[in-house]
Order: sequence, then structure tokens, then C-alpha cells
Amino acid sequence: MWRNILLVLLTFLLANLVCSDYLTTRNEILRAEKSLAIGGTLILTDKEKEANEILLRVKHKELQGVQEDITKFVPARHFLSIRKDVEKSKLFSIIQKLPKGASLHTHLSASVSLDYVFTQIVLLENLHGCVINGRLKLRFFEKGKTSNLCRWELIEDLRKKETTFDSWIKGQISLITDGNSQNVYNNINDIWKAFLGSFSTVYGMLTYTPVFQDYLYQALKELYEDKVFYVEFRINFSYLYELDGKIHNFEYILETFSEVVQKFKSEHPGFIGAKIIYAPNRNLNATELENTLNTYTSLQKLYPDVLAGFDLVGFEDTGKPLIEFYEQFQSFHNTTNFFFHAGETNWYGFDVDQNLIDAVMLGSKRIGHAYALVKHPKVLELVKQKDIAIEVSPISTQVLMFVDDLRNHPSSALIAQGFPIVICNDDPGKWGAKGLSYDWYMAIMGMASKDAGLEFLKQLALNSFKYSSLSETEKNQAIRDWTVAWGRFIEDLIKNKNSYL
Amino acid sequence: MWRNILLVLLTFLLANLVCSDYLTTRNEILRAEKSLAIGGTLILTDKEKEANEILLRVKHKELQGVQEDITKFVPARHFLSIRKDVEKSKLFSIIQKLPKGASLHTHLSASVSLDYVFTQIVLLENLHGCVINGRLKLRFFEKGKTSNLCRWELIEDLRKKETTFDSWIKGQISLITDGNSQNVYNNINDIWKAFLGSFSTVYGMLTYTPVFQDYLYQALKELYEDKVFYVEFRINFSYLYELDGKIHNFEYILETFSEVVQKFKSEHPGFIGAKIIYAPNRNLNATELENTLNTYTSLQKLYPDVLAGFDLVGFEDTGKPLIEFYEQFQSFHNTTNFFFHAGETNWYGFDVDQNLIDAVMLGSKRIGHAYALVKHPKVLELVKQKDIAIEVSPISTQVLMFVDDLRNHPSSALIAQGFPIVICNDDPGKWGAKGLSYDWYMAIMGMASKDAGLEFLKQLALNSFKYSSLSETEKNQAIRDWTVAWGRFIEDLIKNKNSYL
Ligand SMILES: [Zn+2]
Ligand SMILES: [Zn+2]
Repeated sequence: MWRNILLVLLTFLLANLVCSDYLTTRNEILRAEKSLAIGGTLILTDKEKEANEILLRVKHKELQGVQEDITKFVPARHFLSIRKDVEKSKLFSIIQKLPKGASLHTHLSASVSLDYVFTQIVLLENLHGCVINGRLKLRFFEKGKTSNLCRWELIEDLRKKETTFDSWIKGQISLITDGNSQNVYNNINDIWKAFLGSFSTVYGMLTYTPVFQDYLYQALKELYEDKVFYVEFRINFSYLYELDGKIHNFEYILETFSEVVQKFKSEHPGFIGAKIIYAPNRNLNATELENTLNTYTSLQKLYPDVLAGFDLVGFEDTGKPLIEFYEQFQSFHNTTNFFFHAGETNWYGFDVDQNLIDAVMLGSKRIGHAYALVKHPKVLELVKQKDIAIEVSPISTQVLMFVDDLRNHPSSALIAQGFPIVICNDDPGKWGAKGLSYDWYMAIMGMASKDAGLEFLKQLALNSFKYSSLSETEKNQAIRDWTVAWGRFIEDLIKNKNSYL
Repeated sequence: MWRNILLVLLTFLLANLVCSDYLTTRNEILRAEKSLAIGGTLILTDKEKEANEILLRVKHKELQGVQEDITKFVPARHFLSIRKDVEKSKLFSIIQKLPKGASLHTHLSASVSLDYVFTQIVLLENLHGCVINGRLKLRFFEKGKTSNLCRWELIEDLRKKETTFDSWIKGQISLITDGNSQNVYNNINDIWKAFLGSFSTVYGMLTYTPVFQDYLYQALKELYEDKVFYVEFRINFSYLYELDGKIHNFEYILETFSEVVQKFKSEHPGFIGAKIIYAPNRNLNATELENTLNTYTSLQKLYPDVLAGFDLVGFEDTGKPLIEFYEQFQSFHNTTNFFFHAGETNWYGFDVDQNLIDAVMLGSKRIGHAYALVKHPKVLELVKQKDIAIEVSPISTQVLMFVDDLRNHPSSALIAQGFPIVICNDDPGKWGAKGLSYDWYMAIMGMASKDAGLEFLKQLALNSFKYSSLSETEKNQAIRDWTVAWGRFIEDLIKNKNSYL
């Protein structure tokens, strides 16, 4: 309403420019745009204003000279070639200390840093590998008791044989290739093949119960250390197993997940918890989906605090569209919270971007990526009206080759228009990132306005709770706790300003 | 109004999905989005529908398999590496035959195809070259009577000396480099340096009166042959000269321009005419601008049919922002039609994208590029409300390194939302294009919906007249003539369908 009034006012002022003050009207437009953008309606306290001045001075210093020499501007370059530059950034170090709230779009099996996975899991005893069609598979077996479907060899033996083995295996479990400092994949089809392949490589390693427990604990730890207090993990595991080959069913995953999270919580003050969005591969058939949804809903009743929702994953461009399953989804519509990946594509007018229509129609609580959303004005209206959050993962979108220069990320327009956005990390372990700060850094440096500062980051943190699956009571408690941490962060930033400037 | 009603209706349907028909509602959304997009309000005749079916079959055939193999999709790849693929496209050959209306954003001195410039102008006698700081300058002198500010040599002598001279000089007068099949520039700062440099190379060649006449005639010819009937040229020449060194003033340019256009018109039935948007470099100072505007407005009174408006050109990222001159522009606001380049940038929250605010406030009739527009919601509202056309030049934007994959061009969202857009060619001669069809092809293939067809192209043609500087009477006549040509095109397309399918 007030926006309409403002527009009428602006129009009036523009029509009478000759007698009014040009600069006043211009500032009015700038102010109106600032107030529309994410964070624009927040009113900062005096302390926050002081902290914001510091933060903006740091940010603007890092932006010096970028217009004259674009190579200095990291969000315009491939993440793999500039990761180390990010780590040298003072703004990044501030963001690392900033309480970021929740991580709402993280695939568990790609959530832990590559360093940890390589040094703490790949090097564990009993891990075996075998290569099928150029793709490594990993699995734990008791020594000498491998299955005979594949020529399994001990990873520790393979490492001794080949000096280049370590860098090769890193390229199998992640997208980080040999001597890597930039992207070596030619196009989106190639990188997605490697990306999905790397999930198939680690599946048999991460579903070994002790590793699953350790990996999940580490995932929580890396996020917690990055000032993230609540997580919703997309999980596509359907079983866990033991060294002797014994298989546990899905319910056991939920039990184990719950135990690890409880243990972590008890050992880490301020940590709120973690939930699961069950997300099998989108290339199942209708009967499989129906069965999966049946299992999901019955387990959801048993584990309402663990299972937050349902999703489908995979390469949307070439995968099955949601419309193929609308009848199945519709019949579970009232009992299931959907959190669909949708419109993670550059196409326009294809089945894949029309997934956005189905996501909204099926009542998706949030939408993953929604990269094509700006090309769907009706869906945009519905997203705004229904207050559906968009899960934006800047680095993922760049590494997986939807966009090159993050300033061209279409969600930048959604940030400008104040759409409900949460910044997520998707699969940090696949590209050498860790926690959520790298993505937040890209959002504030590459996707928001030059003058977007603390109010932008604060709104992102608040959004991460608001659009989470926490109950209202939990949300209120979470925001109360976060506010305390936020206050400490503001104090510290002001106190330590000299170390940043 | 009806859009609001539609939205209320959609909301109602969505809320009652269980008892209503999912697919009906979904189609309603698709239909609503189709009607919002450019061309969505046009009602096609039966003949046009028949032609549209052919056109869409051709388009969809060219889109076959692109999702599985993105390398087949030319708008996602650099123009220099796929130009020949475009020329093989049947959809492109249809677009070449389609009456496209007007070309509203073409820089005269980059408007003629490289082939013509090289074979018909560079090889003329008396053309001399000299290199200053690695940049070739060209100028005509009588033999033996060069100026001594530079070591001028005859181009015909230089060609004899060096076998690689021809390919080198092509790289000096355009962005087409040796053995070229792709872009060799590392970043936006590098390519803009080369781009602006190439204008400085040809300046002294194209301002030689007989060449100016010939070049302008050829520019009109190439556009006319590409089914373009009216042009507004951005021109930054301030003088013409003769072989003996005699200098003509700006008024002489207008006279000469007018004569050539009249001659061309008399020899080419259906051609409507051409006008000038005077566009000096943006890096002048306030006094120079004031003087230029004074000259411009007095000449505009003398040549109202030749001078259509005023603009500033150059690399916006590092050039002076419009705000620096707002007082000068404001005082000429009522007597001058502005057609500003504005927001041709990836930056957000910088002086350069804020040029969009000034362009709108200064009453710009159209805006060149407006690449950053989607990040400025208030300016978007004003653009829509004031019906300011956006001049979109897809290939220019890609070659000059604002965007890589044209599906990421932000104006794709403006196309989806039905903003007033005209598709332009900017500087076709710099990258081996010719006429307007290459850009139209990129627009329909890379920036519009998969199902955008004839209604999209028809609206682009109609927009090109609607947002031109022609008078209302001229516009009506132009559209009447165009309608006849359009009807013939539709007939021909239907008649020759077998040659496309
Ligand atoms: Zn994801
Ligand atoms: Zn231009």
C-alpha cells in the first residue's frame, strides 16, 4: 500500500522536476530501492549502525579498483580459482564470526570439508575401492571379505602403489581435480556427470554406520564453528551397514541421526538441532515414488522431530519433471511438507523450468535454487504472496555452471526486490568450501548492492529461522538465543575494528 | 486490472486444488505467463497461426537434444565461435526474410559488415596508416602529402611488406582477431580497451567525405537487405574532411547524411529513412557538454528530420556517470530528446548502474542496454509506467563480456514480463555480424520462451516502430507499409514450408 503511495508521489515529483529539486527526488528513488531490498525494512540500533559503518568500510575497501580491473573482484571469477583469495578477505573473516542462524539447504553427503573427508575417512582402515566404468566406488569390508561383484582393493594398498592416487581420489570424491586451481569441466553436462558421479563414489563409504555417525557429527561441527546453529539436511541414504555386511533400514538412519544430533547438542551450547529432508533421486518411477512417500509419511508420524520434509534431487535439466508425479504428490499434499528443488536451470519454457509452477502448486514450503524464477512472473507473484522462501546457493550455482559471474545470478534481482531468500551452501565439500560463510560472502559481495551491509546479513540470519521447519515456539527461542549471540558479535566487531581497518 | 482479477482467481483455484483440476490450474498459469510475455496480447490471424506452426516446428527442431548436449545450443556459446552455425540455421534464414521494422540502436561507425569495410574501404587508394602505442590510426591523404604528427605509410605498401597484415588490420578495425573463431580477450576491461580502440582506428577513415557517403549508403543497404526499413544511428563524428585536408563542420555531416539517405530512399522502395542520435564520448567535461548541447539544440531546430536525439557513449563502467551532468541535461530537458545508454554494467549499487535513475529522471525516450535494470525495482516501475523502451542488443552484450550464456541475459526476465523492448544490433561490424537478424535470432532462441514464436517477432517489429522517433503520421504509414510486407512474408513462409522442414 505505502509502496503505491510512494510511486504516485515519485511520479508527481518527476513531472514537476523543473521546480523541484532533482537530487531530492533522486535520493528518494535510491531510498525507496534500499527499503525494498532484503534488510531494507530493518531499523538498526546505534551499536549496529556503528558496526555497519565498520563492515561497509571493510567491504568498500575490498571493492576498491574493481571497476578498473575486474580480475580483482572474486565473485566474477570461478570459485575454485579464488577460494584462497576469499580466505584472505577481512570481510570474510567478519562473516565467519557473524551468527548466521540456520543452514536450510545442505546435502548431508556433500556437507563436510574435503580435507576432513580425505584425512579422517578415506584413510580409515578397511576402506576398499573398485572402479566401474572409470568411476570409483568405495565401501568398507572386513579384510579379505569383499563382495565379488567388483574387483575391490584396499585403499591403503592402492595408495602405496600409485603416487598420484591421493589427488586422483580427491577428484573422485569431489570436483577438486589434480593440481586444481580452476574448473576443468567443459560444460554443464560434463560437470553434472562428474558431480553426480562423486556422490555415487562416496555413497558406500558414508553409509557405513560408524562413518555416518562421525561424518554427521563433523558436518554439525563445521557448521557450528561457522556460527550456524540449526541445519536441515537433504539426505538420500536408504540404508546403513556394518563391517560384517549387516544392513540397517531407513528407520535406523533416523534413530542414528537423532542420537548423533542429541550428542552434538549436549556438547555444544547454543546449538539448536538438525532435521532431515528426505530427498531421493528424481529418476524413480511413479510406483517407486508412491512407495517412498508411503514409507516417508508413516515414518514422519514416528519421527516428527527428525523428518522435516520431502524433496527429489538430481540434474533437473535431464531428469524427470515434477509434473510426471503430480498425482502422487497431490495425494500426499496434506500430510507432507515439500521442499522441492525446482527451476535449477538456464532453460526457459521447458519442462525443467516449469517445475517451478508445480513446486508452488504442490505447496512447496521453500524452493531449492529456483534459478529460472525471474522468467516466470506468475510464479513470482505466487511465491511472494504465499511467502515461499527461495534457497539460493551462490557458489553451487557457479561451480555447477549455471552462471559464470555471480553478478549475473538472477536472484540478485530477487534480493533487490526483497523476496524471501535464504542463502545456503548446497554441497560445500564438493568444491573445497566449508560452512556457510563462503556463500554469504558471495551474496553480499557479488549479488547485493554495493551499500548492502549489516541489515542485509541480519535479515538473512532472521530469514534462516523464519523459513525453517522449526515450530513457532522453537523459532522464538532460536531467535532469542541468536539475538544474544548477535549482540556479542556487534560488540566484538566494534571492539576489534582496528584489526579490520 | 484483468491481471489482478486473474491473480485472485488463481489464488482461489490453488486454495481449492483438491477438488479442482490440477492440470486446468496449471494451464491457467502457463497461459497467464504467455499472455504477459512480449507478443502475448497479439491475436494471430489463421494465416499467421499456420505460419507460426511452421516457425515453431523449425525452432523446436533446432532445439532438439540441447538439454542433453549444451554444446549444440548456440546462444550459450560465444558469438565469434558460433557465427557460422547461426548462418546454417533455417530459423535464421526465416528471420532474415521477416520484415523486422526498424533498427533503433546502431552505431554508424560500426554498422557495416567487416567484409565490406575490408574489401571496399581499407583497400581504397590513398588510405594511410600509422601506429601510436600499438593502435593503428587510419586516414586518407593525397600521395606524399601526409601530416607529420605521425609516421604515415600507405596501406597498400604495408600490405605488400607483411603477409599477416590483412588479418592484423582486421583485428585493428574490429574485434575479429587472427585465425579467429573465439574470443581472445581475457576480461571486460581488456575487450573494452580493444573495442574503443577499434573506433579510434576507423575514425579517420570513415570521416573522409566520399567514404562517409559510401559507408552510410552501405549501412542502409545491409539493413534494407535484412528487411529493416528505418534506422536511428548513433553518430559521434564531429567533422568530415577531403583528400586535400579541407575540414567540414558538423552541419555538413547532417547535409551529407540527409543527401545519402534521400538517394538511398529514392532507389529502394519501401525504405522509410534514417535519423541521427548525436552521441559524443561521455568523458567530456561540463563546459564541453554545455557547448555541445547548445550546438545540438540549434542544429536540431534546423534539421528536425535528421537529428532525433542526444546520447553519450563509451565504457560506462569506468566513464563519467550521468549524475555528473544532471544540471546541464536538466536545462536542455524540454528541448532535447535523450536516448541514453544507461546501466550497461554488471555492477549493482555503483554510479554506473545508478545511471538508470538519471536516464529516467532526465526523460530518456528509450534506454540503451539497461542491463542492470532488473536490480532497480523503482526504476523498473517508472520504465513501465512511462513506457520507456529498452534497447536490447544480445550479441553486443555477450561479445563485450557482460554475459556469457545469453539465457542469463537479464532482459530475458523483461521479455517474460512484457516490458517494452526493442532488439538492436549495436555494433555488428565489430564482430562479423550484418544487419539485425543475428540479434533477433539470439533473442528468440536464447532469451525468449521455448514456445515464443511469430507473435514474439511480430511484437518486436511493431515495437521498433512504436518506440522510434517517427511522428505519429509517419508511424502509421510505416506500420501500414510493414503490414503489407508482413503479409507477403507470411504467405511465402507457408508456401515454402517444405524447404524449412
Ligand atoms: Zn541442492
Ligand atoms: Zn551502444
